[in-house]
Amino acid sequence: MLEQDRHGLAAALEQARKSYAEGGIPIGSTLYHSSIGPAPLDLDIALTHGTHGSSSELGKRLLLGAGHNQRVQKASATLHAEIAALEDAGRLHAEVYRQSTLYTTLSPCIMCTGAVLLYKIPRIVIGENVNFQGGEDLLRSHGVEIIVADDPECKELMAKFIKEKPEIWYEDIGLPSVQ
Amino acid sequence: MLEQDRHGLAAALEQARKSYAEGGIPIGSTLYHSSIGPAPLDLDIALTHGTHGSSSELGKRLLLGAGHNQRVQKASATLHAEIAALEDAGRLHAEVYRQSTLYTTLSPCIMCTGAVLLYKIPRIVIGENVNFQGGEDLLRSHGVEIIVADDPECKELMAKFIKEKPEIWYEDIGLPSVQ
Ligand SMILES: [Ca+2]
Ligand SMILES: [Ca+2]
Ligand SMILES: [Zn+2]
Ligand SMILES: [Zn+2]
Repeated sequence: MLEQDRHGLAAALEQARKSYAEGGIPIGSTLYHSSIGPAPLDLDIALTHGTHGSSSELGKRLLLGAGHNQRVQKASATLHAEIAALEDAGRLHAEVYRQSTLYTTLSPCIMCTGAVLLYKIPRIVIGENVNFQGGEDLLRSHGVEIIVADDPECKELMAKFIKEKPEIWYEDIGLPSVQ
Repeated sequence: MLEQDRHGLAAALEQARKSYAEGGIPIGSTLYHSSIGPAPLDLDIALTHGTHGSSSELGKRLLLGAGHNQRVQKASATLHAEIAALEDAGRLHAEVYRQSTLYTTLSPCIMCTGAVLLYKIPRIVIGENVNFQGGEDLLRSHGVEIIVADDPECKELMAKFIKEKPEIWYEDIGLPSVQ
C-alpha cells in the first residue's frame, strides 16, 4: 500500500476510535485530494464552497473531509462514516471529487457506495471487509479502483463493537435485531 | 395512482416548493408508513428512537419523515431530499422501513437509490423522471416497487430551476458546470 494511503486510512481509523470512545459505531472515513504537493490553483477555486479544506501533514495532500458514523451520537440514520466525511467536505466542484480518494475503515454499504458513484470518486481505500462487505462489486463494475488494506486494527475495533452492541450494528445496516 | 400515494407525493412537492422559495434546489421527499389506520402497537415500540413520527391527516398513515434538498441552504453535499427525509425520520427499526413508502418529486440519484436499498424500503413513488433519471433499474432489479407519477407540477418546478440555476443542479448530481 502507498504511504499516502496508509496515512489516509490511519486518519479514518482515528475517526473510528473517536466514535467508539463516544459510545458510537466505530467506523471512520476521510476524503483526500489525490495530488501530492501544494494544492493546484484551480483546486483553491474549486474549493470556494468547501467549509473545512486544510492541508494534511504527511505528503501535503489536501484533506477535504473527515467524519465518523453518527447513529448513536446524533440519532442519525444517514450519517454513515463516508457520508459524514462527504458532508464535512461541504460543496465541492465535480472535478475535485474526481481527483480524490475516499478512505473508510469498513467496506461501504450500498448507500455509501452510491455516494461514491454519484460523485465519481475514482479510488477507495477500505480498511477491512471481513466484518461486513458492502457494494464493492458495484464499485468495481463502474471502474472504481478498490484497495482493501485488510487492516488488523480496523478489524479488531469493529469486531469488538459488534460483539458489544450487536443490535446497534444491525440497525445501522438495516437488519432486524434478531437475526 | 392510489389516493394515499397522491397525498404522499403532494407532501413531497410541498417540501420541494419550500426549498425553491428559500433559493434552494426544489426536490422534496417524504417517508410514510404504508399501513392505513392507527399505527399498530408494535410500530410505536419500533419508533422509540424516531424523533418526529406523527400521524398524517389523510388516510391516517404515519408520517415518518420529510425533507428537501439542502445543498444551497446548508451547503450540504449529502442532504438530497430523500436523505433529508430519512434523516428527519431518525433512528427506526429495520421492520419499519420495510413497511414504508418513500415519495420523491424526482427520480432518485444513485446515492439515494442506495439508501432505499440499504433500508429495504419496498415501494417508491417518483414524481417525475423526465428532468433526471437515476437508479430506477437498480431498484427494480432488487424488487423495489416503483410508481412514476409523471406529475406536471413536479416537472415544471424542476425544469424552471434547472433553467435558472443550471450550475447548482449539475453540482448536485456530480457533473461539471460546463457540460
Ligand atoms: Ca473538511
Ligand atoms: Ca419526521
Ligand atoms: Zn454506509
Ligand atoms: Zn440523491
